[in-house]
Amino acid sequence: MALQNDLILRAARGEKVERVPVWLMRQAGRILPEYRAVREKLSGFRELVMTPDLAAEVTIQPVDILGVDAAIIFSDILVIPEAMGLPYEMQENRGPFFPKTIENDRDIAALLGAEAAHELEYVYEAIRVTKKNLNGRVPLIGFAGAPWTIFAYMIEGQGSKTFSKAKRFLYTEPEKSKLILNKITDATIAYLKGQVAAGADMLQVFDSWANILSPEQYNEFSLVYIERICNELNHIVPLTVFAKGAFSARAPFAKMKCDVIGLDWTMDAVESREIIGSSKTLQGNLDPCALYQNKSGIELEVKKMLDAFGTQRYIANLGHGLYPDTDRYMVKAFVDAIKEYKA
Amino acid sequence: MALQNDLILRAARGEKVERVPVWLMRQAGRILPEYRAVREKLSGFRELVMTPDLAAEVTIQPVDILGVDAAIIFSDILVIPEAMGLPYEMQENRGPFFPKTIENDRDIAALLGAEAAHELEYVYEAIRVTKKNLNGRVPLIGFAGAPWTIFAYMIEGQGSKTFSKAKRFLYTEPEKSKLILNKITDATIAYLKGQVAAGADMLQVFDSWANILSPEQYNEFSLVYIERICNELNHIVPLTVFAKGAFSARAPFAKMKCDVIGLDWTMDAVESREIIGSSKTLQGNLDPCALYQNKSGIELEVKKMLDAFGTQRYIANLGHGLYPDTDRYMVKAFVDAIKEYKA
Repeated sequence: MALQNDLILRAARGEKVERVPVWLMRQAGRILPEYRAVREKLSGFRELVMTPDLAAEVTIQPVDILGVDAAIIFSDILVIPEAMGLPYEMQENRGPFFPKTIENDRDIAALLGAEAAHELEYVYEAIRVTKKNLNGRVPLIGFAGAPWTIFAYMIEGQGSKTFSKAKRFLYTEPEKSKLILNKITDATIAYLKGQVAAGADMLQVFDSWANILSPEQYNEFSLVYIERICNELNHIVPLTVFAKGAFSARAPFAKMKCDVIGLDWTMDAVESREIIGSSKTLQGNLDPCALYQNKSGIELEVKKMLDAFGTQRYIANLGHGLYPDTDRYMVKAFVDAIKEYKA
Repeated sequence: MALQNDLILRAARGEKVERVPVWLMRQAGRILPEYRAVREKLSGFRELVMTPDLAAEVTIQPVDILGVDAAIIFSDILVIPEAMGLPYEMQENRGPFFPKTIENDRDIAALLGAEAAHELEYVYEAIRVTKKNLNGRVPLIGFAGAPWTIFAYMIEGQGSKTFSKAKRFLYTEPEKSKLILNKITDATIAYLKGQVAAGADMLQVFDSWANILSPEQYNEFSLVYIERICNELNHIVPLTVFAKGAFSARAPFAKMKCDVIGLDWTMDAVESREIIGSSKTLQGNLDPCALYQNKSGIELEVKKMLDAFGTQRYIANLGHGLYPDTDRYMVKAFVDAIKEYKA
């Protein structure tokens, strides 16, 4: 089915666009009462992720309500470790928790690699239902976590300020770490290809814990695997890489086979463009807390942001996911301000 | 009393040193059983901070046991908000908690400014006792939090991944934010001068939550106040600024009246030296998790670090505080490796 709005795909490929496309990280959920109404009928977050019809419903809500230029499939980066053999729980007010983590060689050997992607049929089905119901209105983004971020959860077993257990493993067991990272990478590549086969029009790889590694460790234990993902996906659809806080990753990302580089709100637009050059599209990067302002405050921030990034080779977004206490009307004000921007 | 080892002071001032000086953030406590033995006799962390003889005892332990080239007074950055009128609790496994935060104009008006420094006699006394008992062996470092980091706790009331309550306040009440930040700055300047009067040989300002503000907000709500501290202290003793994760702060710090710029482990040594130039001493920056390695692994990391930073205008340290589960013998191996380094 032909897309009626392909702004984001054209911006990603560096083609000319008549206005800046906009979507939001964590737009599918959190801030909309329509989302909470669906969520409340269920036992929890995981049930929503694993029920294709409902995942599709909440995926489309922000397209209807906020008017964004892309949907992103409602899911979680932790479906990959689960498919590989380590199930997760999502604990209210505490975040993800893995009852079992990787502790010995047998645990590593037992992890599924590429074949883990076969366990994720429920995601592909959610993508198919979403595509059908979107009916060509806007593109659908699929996603996965970057291998280092997934590894961090698989070793640490939960969120952490320091991820010192996962980092200890990198320092003391570098070869075993690479074994695990390679398996995660195999699973992720197969999973992303599966999402494209199911209908995803674009992909994003999230490296949420990029900023806790030294540049040297980031090169060795993260960038190598992200690059392999980029090479294997090889532009079959536009691919975005987003590594939160990884200032030194911008230059190497510029040389990879990705199409878009996501920036967080601590990264300067002009400086980032200088480092990255003109061959990639940039995405970002308003501070999610800026949406706590009133409408005119938000309009001012949007103008500053688009003045700095320009209107071409650019996708407007926040520098991180929406915070749950954000006023939905201010989110709409953000989306509207981008659509109405005049350079 | 003349100092027998003034390596760190000379390195800070850019004078020639015969070897690289080394100390560790959070060296006074956490990893030493001798520290835990003192701590266990008390009701909690705060009692230790407020008992000068015992604070002095744990301050000196790492000089005796690890052989570091400087002591840092055992205290907490949160003594300032308490002195200003907002007492804190230190909750086991949860961190600091403020039963009362700033909610309205009356709360702001009630905050003490410079006069808050008079409430901190127990810190000055701990410094005097420490200086007496150190007996000139090594210099003593005093410290305070940067105004933005203190502000963040005073509004948020506790640690947070996003500090979105504090950031909401910056966005929605910028003028009131500046009122509070100015009061904190006044209190901090008087407090640091009080520490010097009591005997501190060097000072460090910690901006622990530097990396959650956009560069623009960091300029407006943090750098301005750090600069005022630097101007008022005006090199009466060497002053170090350490802003965790604030990549874009390195260039402005290079122009301030500080002597040393602390770097975290995500910042590259060579790149940082290029940005900062040759007029400041650099401090840092091994990943605290690197100490999970064995002795030869640590020696290799130290060699790489000192090769990159060089031996002059440099103070060896970690890129953040010691983690509590670090093996004390590996900490000692780190200190020894720096002392034994040959370029």
